[in-house]
Amino acid sequence: MNFTSDNEAPAHRAMIEAVGRANEGFATAYANDAWSRALDERFSRVFDTDCHVLPIATGTAANCVAIAELSPPWGAVLCHQLAHIHNDENGAPEFYSAGAKLVPLAGDDGKLDARTLASAIDGAGTHGVHNVKPSVVSITQATECGTTYRPEEIRAIAEATHDRGLHLHMDGARFANAVEHLGCHPAETTWKAGVDVLSFGATKNGALTAEAIVVFGHPDWLEGMARRRKRAGHLLSKMRYVSAQLLAQLDDDLWLDIAGRANARAAQLARGIDAGPHASLHWPVESNEVFMKATPEKLAELKEKGFLFHIWPGHDDLARLVCSWATSEEDVSAFLNALDS
Amino acid sequence: MNFTSDNEAPAHRAMIEAVGRANEGFATAYANDAWSRALDERFSRVFDTDCHVLPIATGTAANCVAIAELSPPWGAVLCHQLAHIHNDENGAPEFYSAGAKLVPLAGDDGKLDARTLASAIDGAGTHGVHNVKPSVVSITQATECGTTYRPEEIRAIAEATHDRGLHLHMDGARFANAVEHLGCHPAETTWKAGVDVLSFGATKNGALTAEAIVVFGHPDWLEGMARRRKRAGHLLSKMRYVSAQLLAQLDDDLWLDIAGRANARAAQLARGIDAGPHASLHWPVESNEVFMKATPEKLAELKEKGFLFHIWPGHDDLARLVCSWATSEEDVSAFLNALDS
Amino acid sequence: MNFTSDNEAPAHRAMIEAVGRANEGFATAYANDAWSRALDERFSRVFDTDCHVLPIATGTAANCVAIAELSPPWGAVLCHQLAHIHNDENGAPEFYSAGAKLVPLAGDDGKLDARTLASAIDGAGTHGVHNVKPSVVSITQATECGTTYRPEEIRAIAEATHDRGLHLHMDGARFANAVEHLGCHPAETTWKAGVDVLSFGATKNGALTAEAIVVFGHPDWLEGMARRRKRAGHLLSKMRYVSAQLLAQLDDDLWLDIAGRANARAAQLARGIDAGPHASLHWPVESNEVFMKATPEKLAELKEKGFLFHIWPGHDDLARLVCSWATSEEDVSAFLNALDS
Amino acid sequence: MNFTSDNEAPAHRAMIEAVGRANEGFATAYANDAWSRALDERFSRVFDTDCHVLPIATGTAANCVAIAELSPPWGAVLCHQLAHIHNDENGAPEFYSAGAKLVPLAGDDGKLDARTLASAIDGAGTHGVHNVKPSVVSITQATECGTTYRPEEIRAIAEATHDRGLHLHMDGARFANAVEHLGCHPAETTWKAGVDVLSFGATKNGALTAEAIVVFGHPDWLEGMARRRKRAGHLLSKMRYVSAQLLAQLDDDLWLDIAGRANARAAQLARGIDAGPHASLHWPVESNEVFMKATPEKLAELKEKGFLFHIWPGHDDLARLVCSWATSEEDVSAFLNALDS
Repeated sequence: MNFTSDNEAPAHRAMIEAVGRANEGFATAYANDAWSRALDERFSRVFDTDCHVLPIATGTAANCVAIAELSPPWGAVLCHQLAHIHNDENGAPEFYSAGAKLVPLAGDDGKLDARTLASAIDGAGTHGVHNVKPSVVSITQATECGTTYRPEEIRAIAEATHDRGLHLHMDGARFANAVEHLGCHPAETTWKAGVDVLSFGATKNGALTAEAIVVFGHPDWLEGMARRRKRAGHLLSKMRYVSAQLLAQLDDDLWLDIAGRANARAAQLARGIDAGPHASLHWPVESNEVFMKATPEKLAELKEKGFLFHIWPGHDDLARLVCSWATSEEDVSAFLNALDS
Repeated sequence: MNFTSDNEAPAHRAMIEAVGRANEGFATAYANDAWSRALDERFSRVFDTDCHVLPIATGTAANCVAIAELSPPWGAVLCHQLAHIHNDENGAPEFYSAGAKLVPLAGDDGKLDARTLASAIDGAGTHGVHNVKPSVVSITQATECGTTYRPEEIRAIAEATHDRGLHLHMDGARFANAVEHLGCHPAETTWKAGVDVLSFGATKNGALTAEAIVVFGHPDWLEGMARRRKRAGHLLSKMRYVSAQLLAQLDDDLWLDIAGRANARAAQLARGIDAGPHASLHWPVESNEVFMKATPEKLAELKEKGFLFHIWPGHDDLARLVCSWATSEEDVSAFLNALDS
Repeated sequence: MNFTSDNEAPAHRAMIEAVGRANEGFATAYANDAWSRALDERFSRVFDTDCHVLPIATGTAANCVAIAELSPPWGAVLCHQLAHIHNDENGAPEFYSAGAKLVPLAGDDGKLDARTLASAIDGAGTHGVHNVKPSVVSITQATECGTTYRPEEIRAIAEATHDRGLHLHMDGARFANAVEHLGCHPAETTWKAGVDVLSFGATKNGALTAEAIVVFGHPDWLEGMARRRKRAGHLLSKMRYVSAQLLAQLDDDLWLDIAGRANARAAQLARGIDAGPHASLHWPVESNEVFMKATPEKLAELKEKGFLFHIWPGHDDLARLVCSWATSEEDVSAFLNALDS
Repeated sequence: MNFTSDNEAPAHRAMIEAVGRANEGFATAYANDAWSRALDERFSRVFDTDCHVLPIATGTAANCVAIAELSPPWGAVLCHQLAHIHNDENGAPEFYSAGAKLVPLAGDDGKLDARTLASAIDGAGTHGVHNVKPSVVSITQATECGTTYRPEEIRAIAEATHDRGLHLHMDGARFANAVEHLGCHPAETTWKAGVDVLSFGATKNGALTAEAIVVFGHPDWLEGMARRRKRAGHLLSKMRYVSAQLLAQLDDDLWLDIAGRANARAAQLARGIDAGPHASLHWPVESNEVFMKATPEKLAELKEKGFLFHIWPGHDDLARLVCSWATSEEDVSAFLNALDS
C-alpha cells in the first residue's frame, strides 16, 4: 500500500474522461483554445472575484513564473524553511528570477508567523544596495507539514507583507485539501485574506498534470507571466488537455470532493495512530498528510510489511504518510493493524 | 478545414488509449515509473544504438535543456535563420543557457549548408575572449520550410561541426515526418550521420504532449540535463503519462504510420497545387508542410471560404499549409477544388 | 608607433593628477564620496538638463547596466551589425539582461538608418509571446567605423524608436570624439535628439578607467541601474578615483580638448592617405579612427616597419588606425612617409 | 576620526606612485600588458607554487567570477552566515552563477567549523535532482568578525570539503591582515591548507582598486574565469593600472607592511578597550577590525564626539571599528580617551 505521495496515485477517472472529451476536433494552439479561454471566467466564479488564470503543467513552473514576475533579480523571497520552493525545486526560483535569494524562516507546524515575518523583513535590506531587497512572501497552503493556515493567520501575514511593500504568493500544491479541511470559501483563504497570486494545484489532487497560476488583481503582471511561461517552454501547444482537467475539477466542486476523500483517509489514519500505543502524531493533521513519530524499528517493520512512505530527511523516527483520493478505508485499516501488531 | 498547424489537430486515438492504460495503480513519481524507465531500452532498439532518453513535455523545453547543456553561457549556437529556436521560442535558449547567443545563417530551402556553416564558425571567435565562442550547431529535421536533410547533408554538417570542436543538435519537432519521407532508418539521419542529441517530437505527430531528449553517447551530459529539466519545472511528477505516449508511438512503428498519413496528405496537396494554374510550390514538399505561393487575393478568398492556414510573416503571397494524421483526403480535395475555382 | 587603439595610449597627465588630488583623507565608500556626489550637478551643467549619473569602470559595464534596465529578459535590442555590444563584449548584454536577444541590422558607414530600423521593429514581434519583444535601440557615437551621427540622423532614429514604444541607448565610448568632430553642443546629439541614456566614455579619451551612465529623465530607472551595478561587482568601494577623473574631464572642456587632439591626428592621417597613391579611405573620417584600404602586401610592409594597427577581421586589405591624445604629428608623418615609400 | 572602513582611507602613497609609473608609453590593452603578464610569476614566487592570476577591480567580482566557475547554476555554496558574499553583495554570486544557492551556516567568531560543515554537506542533496548540489565552500580570511583561521582550521575545512567532492574558495578581502597577524607564510593559509582559489584583496589594504583571483592548480578553470570576467565587464582595457598596484604591493612585502600598520592600530585599540571599564571586546582581535561592546548611550556619545564607525546591524550595543594603514597612534589614543571619559 502506497502512502509515499499523492503524486504516485493514479489520476481520477473524471480527469481521464475530461482529456478524452477535449480531444474532439481541431483547436487553436498555445492556450488559445476554448478550454483555456474559459478559465478566467470559471475561476472568477469559483473565487467570487475577477481573476486571471494561466494554465501550466507543473507546480514548480507555476510557483516560479509567479515569483519571478513579483521579484526583481535582486529580490529576496521570504518563505518557511521547509518550503518546497526552497528545498525541493533544485533552485528553480533562482533560475526563473535570474538570481533572487530565498530567505528561509522558522515557524511552528510548518507555518510562517506574521511577527517573525515582519521582523525578518524589517531587519533585511537595511544596507540599501548592498543587500537583496525583500520583495515576495511565499506561503504554502496546505503546508509541507500537512497543516493549514486559517484565514486570520493569512490576513496577518498579508498585512505584514503589504505594509512593507511586498507581494504575497501562495503555493497551493495542496490547496484543495486545505480548503476542504477549513470548510471555508476559497476566497476566504486567498484574495480576501490578501493573497496576490495563487499556484492552484490539481496534479496532486487527481489530475494527470494540471496547475494554474491564479492572479487576483494586478493585470500588469500578466504579460510578464505569459512571457516567462513561454520562455520556459511551458506554453503547451496543446494546452486544451491541461485546461480541460482544470475545468473538470471545478465542475460541481469535484476538486473539493477529491480532496475530501484524501482528507478523510488522513483523518482516519490520524485517529488510529493517536489511539494506539506505538506511534504519535508529530504535527496536527489538517489536510491529506500525516506525520507519524515511531521508533526507527517500528518504521522499518512497516516498510518490510510492504507499506510505502517517506522517512523525513534527517529524522529516522518520523514518517510522512500521504493519502490520496485513491487511498481506501481498507488501506488505512491495514496500515493501522500493522502498526498495532 | 484546418491547415494551420499539426498542433491544432486532435491527438491520435492510440495516444489517448496509452494514457488511459498508464493510469493503472500507483507509480513512482518524477520519471522513476516503469514507463519512463523503459524509454532508454526502447529508443535504443529503435535507433539501433545505446541511447539515453529524457521525456519532457514540450519541444521548446527539449531543445533548450539540450542546448544549454552543450553551450556555455558565452557560447554561440549556429542555426538556420528560420530556425524555431531563433524565431519562435521567445528567447528560451538564451534563458536556459544563461545568455548564449544564437547566430542565424542563411541557407536554401531552410537548410544549413556545410560550407556556409564552416565558414561562419571559422570567422567567429577570432578575437578570443571578446567574442562569444561557437559551441553548438542546431539543425531542424524536417526544417521550418518542410524540407528534409538527406543523411549525406547531415554528415557534411556534422563533420564541419565536430572538426571545429562543436556539438550537433537536431530539433526533431517533425522528426517522424522526415524519417518517413526519407524512408531511411532513424539511425541514418541521426547518430550515424553525427548528430549528438535529438529533440524527438511526438506532440505534432499525434501525441497530447510528449517529447524526448535522445542523447547519443555523452553520458556525461545526463546529470546536467536532468538538473536543467528539474530546475525548469519540467520534471513532471506524473511523467508516466508522457512516457506512455512515447512508448506507444514506438510500438509497431506507429510514429511512422501517423507521420505517413500526414505526409501523404501533404503530397496530395502538393500534386494538386503543382497541377493547377493558380498557385505554385515555394519549397520542395518533403514532409507534412506545404508552402504555396499565390496572389494575396487568392489567399484571402480561400480564407473566406473557411480554410485555415498561416500567411508566412512578411510575405503576403505565401501560405503555409500543414497536414496532420487527422487531415483527410476529402479535406485536401476540398481545398484544391476551392483553389481551382 | 602604435595606432592599435586609444586604449593602449597612456592616460592623460591631468587624469593622473586628478587621481592624486582625490587621494586626500578619508572619503565615504561606495560612490557616496564628494566626487561621486558632484557628478549629477556637473553633468547636468554640461548637458544643459537635469541628468543622473552612475560612475562605472568600463564601457561594457556601462552599456550592459543600461541595456539590462531598459530591456526585459525577453527583449530584443536592435543595433548595427558592427556594434561593440554585439561583437566584442562576449555576450555581456545577454548576461546582464538574463537573456535578451541582440538583433544586428545592416547600415552604411556603421550607422543605423531610421527607415531600416523602423521596418525591423515593425517586422519583429508580430507573433506575440512567441517572439522576443523589441525593447531597446542602441546606437554608437562615434560608430565602430569612425563615423558620427549628425543630430538629425539621431532624431529620426529616436522618432522611429519612441513611436514604437522602445527606448534609445547611445554607446558613447568615443562620445567626446564625436561631439568634438560635430562641433555641436553635447545636448544636440543626446537628449535633445531623443537619446534616453548615454554610456559616456572617458577611458578611451585619456582616463585611466572611467565611464559614466548618464540618464536623461527616467528617474524610475535609477534604482534598478544602481542594483545592477552593485550585483555585477561594479560599485567600487573607492569610487572617488573614477569620479575624480570624470570631473576633471569636464573641467574647462578638457574632454573635448583631449578628443580634439586625437581627431586632429586622424584628420591629418586621412588627408595624407587620401593624397597618396598607395591607399584609400574606406569610411569617412569623422572622429579619431581611420579605416584605410591598401594591398595586404602594403599593410604587411607597414607592420614590418614597426607600425602597430589592427587588420579588420575578415578583410586583409583593410587597416584600422586609431589616434589618441598621445599620437604626435610626427607619428602620423612617419606613418605617411612609410606608406608612400 | 574615521573607523568606518578601511575602504574609506586614502590609498597608500606607493599605490599612487605605482599607477604613475605604469603610465609610461603605450601598452597592450585587456590585460595583455607587461604588468598583467608578470602577475603569474610574481604571485607564484610569493605563494611558493605555480599559480594563475586574474587581476580584477573589486572583491565582489573576484569572489563571483571564482564561485561561478566552481559551481553549476544548481550548486549550493556553503559559507558562514555572516559572509560578505551572502549578506553584502546584493545577490552577486547568484547573478554570476545563474542562480546558485548560498547556504549560510552558523559558527563561532565568524568562522566555519569543519564538523558543522561536513554535517551540512552530508545532510544536503540527499534527494538528488530535487535538491541543489553542494559544490563550493567559501571561507573568509580574515573573517567578517575580524578573526582569522589558523592553518590547521583551514586544513580541516578543506578536508571536509574535498572529501565530499566540493571545492574551497577563500574570500581574502583582508587576506594581508590575516597573514600578517598569523605570521605565517601565505602558502600555509592557502594552497598548503587546501584552498583551491583565493580572492586576494588589495583595495582594503591601501590600493586604489585592485584585487586578484589566484588559482592554485586547476588550469581548466582559467578559460571560464577569463570569459566570466569579460562578460561581466571586468576585463579593463587599461588593466595595467590595476596590475601595477598588485605588483607594487608584493614588492619588498609592502602588502604585509601596510597590513601590519593597520593590525597594530587594531591591537592598540583592543588593548585600550580591554583595559577600560566602559566597553569590552566582542570577538578576538586578530586583524584590523575591532568589535566593541558598549552601551548604546556610550556609542552615541562617541559618535557625537565625531568618531565614525558602524553600529553592527541589529545590535545597538556593538560597534565595528576598522583600522587602516592611515590610522595613526594618535587617532586610536583619542578614541580611547573619549571612551574612558
